[in-house]
Amino acid sequence: MMVEGRYLKSAFAPVFRILEEMPLELGEDGVRGVGMDSAHVAAARLELPPGFFEEFRPPEEEVEIGVDGEYLARICNRIRVTDEVELSSDGEELVLVVRREGYERVFRVRGIEVGESADLPELEYEAEVTLVPDFLADAVRDVEGVSDTVELVAREGELMLRAEGEHSEVRPVVREGSEALITSVEVEDGEVKALYSVDYLKDMVRAAQGAESVTLRFGEELPLELEFRVGPAGEGTVKFYLAPRVEE
Amino acid sequence: MMVEGRYLKSAFAPVFRILEEMPLELGEDGVRGVGMDSAHVAAARLELPPGFFEEFRPPEEEVEIGVDGEYLARICNRIRVTDEVELSSDGEELVLVVRREGYERVFRVRGIEVGESADLPELEYEAEVTLVPDFLADAVRDVEGVSDTVELVAREGELMLRAEGEHSEVRPVVREGSEALITSVEVEDGEVKALYSVDYLKDMVRAAQGAESVTLRFGEELPLELEFRVGPAGEGTVKFYLAPRVEE
Amino acid sequence: MMVEGRYLKSAFAPVFRILEEMPLELGEDGVRGVGMDSAHVAAARLELPPGFFEEFRPPEEEVEIGVDGEYLARICNRIRVTDEVELSSDGEELVLVVRREGYERVFRVRGIEVGESADLPELEYEAEVTLVPDFLADAVRDVEGVSDTVELVAREGELMLRAEGEHSEVRPVVREGSEALITSVEVEDGEVKALYSVDYLKDMVRAAQGAESVTLRFGEELPLELEFRVGPAGEGTVKFYLAPRVEE
Repeated sequence: MMVEGRYLKSAFAPVFRILEEMPLELGEDGVRGVGMDSAHVAAARLELPPGFFEEFRPPEEEVEIGVDGEYLARICNRIRVTDEVELSSDGEELVLVVRREGYERVFRVRGIEVGESADLPELEYEAEVTLVPDFLADAVRDVEGVSDTVELVAREGELMLRAEGEHSEVRPVVREGSEALITSVEVEDGEVKALYSVDYLKDMVRAAQGAESVTLRFGEELPLELEFRVGPAGEGTVKFYLAPRVEE
Repeated sequence: MMVEGRYLKSAFAPVFRILEEMPLELGEDGVRGVGMDSAHVAAARLELPPGFFEEFRPPEEEVEIGVDGEYLARICNRIRVTDEVELSSDGEELVLVVRREGYERVFRVRGIEVGESADLPELEYEAEVTLVPDFLADAVRDVEGVSDTVELVAREGELMLRAEGEHSEVRPVVREGSEALITSVEVEDGEVKALYSVDYLKDMVRAAQGAESVTLRFGEELPLELEFRVGPAGEGTVKFYLAPRVEE
Repeated sequence: MMVEGRYLKSAFAPVFRILEEMPLELGEDGVRGVGMDSAHVAAARLELPPGFFEEFRPPEEEVEIGVDGEYLARICNRIRVTDEVELSSDGEELVLVVRREGYERVFRVRGIEVGESADLPELEYEAEVTLVPDFLADAVRDVEGVSDTVELVAREGELMLRAEGEHSEVRPVVREGSEALITSVEVEDGEVKALYSVDYLKDMVRAAQGAESVTLRFGEELPLELEFRVGPAGEGTVKFYLAPRVEE
């Protein structure tokens, strides 16, 4: 399966910044994987259908291979956006052949034992909004250091983050009409509040930084789902899930 | 009190890079504060008169509030030069409302107990010169690592820094006619020498990096005074004071 | 001896990134030195003949002075490419007077006791190739972290680096026709393989990064020689030597 460096990076780099390891399936449906982080607080789902690839030649039989996230993230750093990447696996190794004018590299990543694919339930969220990732990145940096939890507050026409520490309180807010909002804020009731870990949210938001838009879905005591699309025409999907923090 | 981000940053960021905490007064005279660092080696004086602000609405009564320098410095990092900042206080909290197109943040900084305002005596210095901050930044980086003290040597038409270590000696010098000098070097006698800590001087010079010009005043066994102006037309003043190092 | 900052930096900075200390000879032949690192794994030879300098005034008698590499490297960082540098020594101190418009610095580096000049044998290498340093820098970053040794493999028309770790293998390769190759790969026999430390190779390749081209010479169980030229027209030479790693 052949893909331009920029697309492989945009799909793999975010996921392997979050997950230490992940089982990948390569088959007729493309490349897919679902994994959780070791603390079972964050999860990611990756779906790269055949259309994501420039040339798609699936393995004859579907293979599954567990990969080391840190090493895959490192390889992503070594791929340039204009490199051509050939991805294949025999179930024992994941092989990336990375080419540019006059320079070829073969990265062989031996499979590792990973737990079973996480089974993520479909949830009904209470709030949804699609926005440009920059706003989220700014807002998370604003609340960082104030508290280790941040409250997301969605109201008709407004999304607020709220962090309260011993000596300070920060409330970044984006309102209807702002260029940061790609869709309106949809809320089930008048107001939806939910509490998450700042550190995990920061990592996810950073991982999604390169995306054109990011969709947030959340609800009280529900996980946060952060989704963005990857590939030449957005054929692929990356979804992150973050467990809610319950206030004691 | 309303002020453009660039001006608030230029006034607050240097001071709160140097001081861990500071009492601020907000009143009809604007915003003022004098504080010392915990080691009592460095001090800073901040004076932002009404003309410094775009819109000036003082509190009805003068309030005093002690603020945490590190946290204020962090907030400064999060303000963009084109943001609009509204500053207010009720004596319990310092509130910064920071706005840009489509994005608003409220930073609430609760007051902390700080010592009394430092009482800095007016001194008669023996040497004075105004120069571009770049020269100072270069010179301090040149002497850094050679010794933990640096000698300032002012002579008619020349300012020299001198650091001597066990294995090396460095002497950066700027002479009359250099574009680095904005005023002539004024000395009381033929030569004025004074010894200061490199680390503190480095921090102050870095903090003053954004200023258009910096005035140094010093004298043998006297503190160093480093002054620069902030605000749309230089309405505000930041002064740093650094205790002399006495050679044993 | 007078030299433009860019040339002194290009000659001194690489050498003093690798060597903690080095004896330098200043005389009618210019500036020369040979030294080994403290682990006796890496060595460097520096030769700056009179033509390397803008103005060449040798000391009346040849002097030898041992210098501290880390401090020289720091001074190099403080020299700008357009600065004018005057280099001299009386055998007790190495003095660099560094000037730019309106700013003069005198760096005095006192001589230190260093071991005798290393005596590096002339070797007959089995493979040689000249290439642009970027390829090497890329390749070393690719193999880094995979293993602490890297195998250089030269074949007719091809240079490969090969690193194999427990969970991964990386093989960057550059082939005849690539713009990265300035000369053909010359090999004595069909294939020449040699094993070196990744960390040391990385340091040497980084140190050579500014050069226009780099010549590699190596052979099985022979040191690696990495040579590049410095100075206005390449009058000076820097050579690094790296001991082979013997596979256990």
